[in-house]
Amino acid sequence: MEKDYFNNRVTVRNYEKRHIPESLLDEILERAMRAPTCGNMQLYSVIVTRDEEKLKSLAMEHFNQPAAMGADVILTVCADFNRFTQWCEASGAKPGYDNFHSFIMALTDAVIYAQQIVTIAEMEGLGTCYLGTVNYNARQISDLLQLPDLVVPVASLSLGYPAAIPDSCERLPLSAIKHAETYRKDSPEEIIELFKSKDEFPDNKKFVEENNKDSLAQVFTDIRYPESVNTAVSESFLSLLKDKGFFK
Amino acid sequence: MEKDYFNNRVTVRNYEKRHIPESLLDEILERAMRAPTCGNMQLYSVIVTRDEEKLKSLAMEHFNQPAAMGADVILTVCADFNRFTQWCEASGAKPGYDNFHSFIMALTDAVIYAQQIVTIAEMEGLGTCYLGTVNYNARQISDLLQLPDLVVPVASLSLGYPAAIPDSCERLPLSAIKHAETYRKDSPEEIIELFKSKDEFPDNKKFVEENNKDSLAQVFTDIRYPESVNTAVSESFLSLLKDKGFFK
Repeated sequence: MEKDYFNNRVTVRNYEKRHIPESLLDEILERAMRAPTCGNMQLYSVIVTRDEEKLKSLAMEHFNQPAAMGADVILTVCADFNRFTQWCEASGAKPGYDNFHSFIMALTDAVIYAQQIVTIAEMEGLGTCYLGTVNYNARQISDLLQLPDLVVPVASLSLGYPAAIPDSCERLPLSAIKHAETYRKDSPEEIIELFKSKDEFPDNKKFVEENNKDSLAQVFTDIRYPESVNTAVSESFLSLLKDKGFFK
Repeated sequence: MEKDYFNNRVTVRNYEKRHIPESLLDEILERAMRAPTCGNMQLYSVIVTRDEEKLKSLAMEHFNQPAAMGADVILTVCADFNRFTQWCEASGAKPGYDNFHSFIMALTDAVIYAQQIVTIAEMEGLGTCYLGTVNYNARQISDLLQLPDLVVPVASLSLGYPAAIPDSCERLPLSAIKHAETYRKDSPEEIIELFKSKDEFPDNKKFVEENNKDSLAQVFTDIRYPESVNTAVSESFLSLLKDKGFFK
């Protein structure tokens, strides 16, 4: 059963119109807190959005993607050094967590927590989807959720009971990912070979045709994750980190 | 069983002198690849260190902490936009992933993958420990593992068969972590109350006494995670990101 879960899990973007009981949600969030955390500092918070109007506003910041629009709950997991800093100040200690390294620690902690939520929620029969758009409109999301200093949204999850379980999509072979002792340098021919299953996956071939491109890679570079967007988001996200106090 | 696992898991830092079969390791790494990944790009790589001499050198970069010294295997999970960029170039596409946002995407992907490895490995009976030191000597680790451009180590895991299972340590109450609809502003008194279980945990009280401090928070700010170290690591890590091409 466990083996089956890990090998077969898929991201679910379509949900039934059915509420997740608050008690189940709490149980998931609490069990996930046993995930590893840096120095047992728990440098994360989770904002639960389930109010209908708030869900609409938040979905808009996620570009109204279907997974956000149809979610029963959206969890915004945040890198949070605010609570810990406040505890230090209230305990006669001088905190020093308003810097980039502390942000990376908190981000790592938050993503570990988010992934633990995903695993537990899916094992409980829920469908989940990371909304990668969290970084794109991080400032707007931060304003909407009234995040204070040293708190930055880093992982958004839509949750709901699955309306349908999609087919599994392709992955690279393990040999692409795994390196023994040192990083292996692959030739362009070897790289093409490693990505063969991706290039030849039927859905991916369809994307290439539909978008009138020469290769799947061009779908990524020209449409899905183009340089102009990446550099714009780099600037806006760095500017948010500064405003939230992580570059003092 | 699954419920028990999530509620009861603990980090294991002491391992038996017993090898993890390569086939088990591969199975774990491969099953973990079904974890969610941004746009199905799999922006991560894992370097497997198991050669005895290489383990010694790598443990040194992790300050010879016990979990690193006694590990049968150390996995260095890296944020990796190199492989994807090479695929784009070999496919007649113009990649634009040499920027901060792309690093954050790859870091997030890598941490999700690392946490999936932890869950599967622990369910298979292995002990695991994140080596938070990965950021401290990221450049030295990067050199040791011969990481190319657009590849940065972000999560190190020590693995082995547990020599002993430690007791569970304390966690904050769920009410500290969870916020309904918007971020709740707690007063200093409320913060102190939320951290009460932490301040009163017997091992923590011992740390305060042993280190001759007035509060547990001072153990964190003065000894474990002091500002001077955090700002130094911020600089060295940012400088590595620049050298690896993530701020072009």
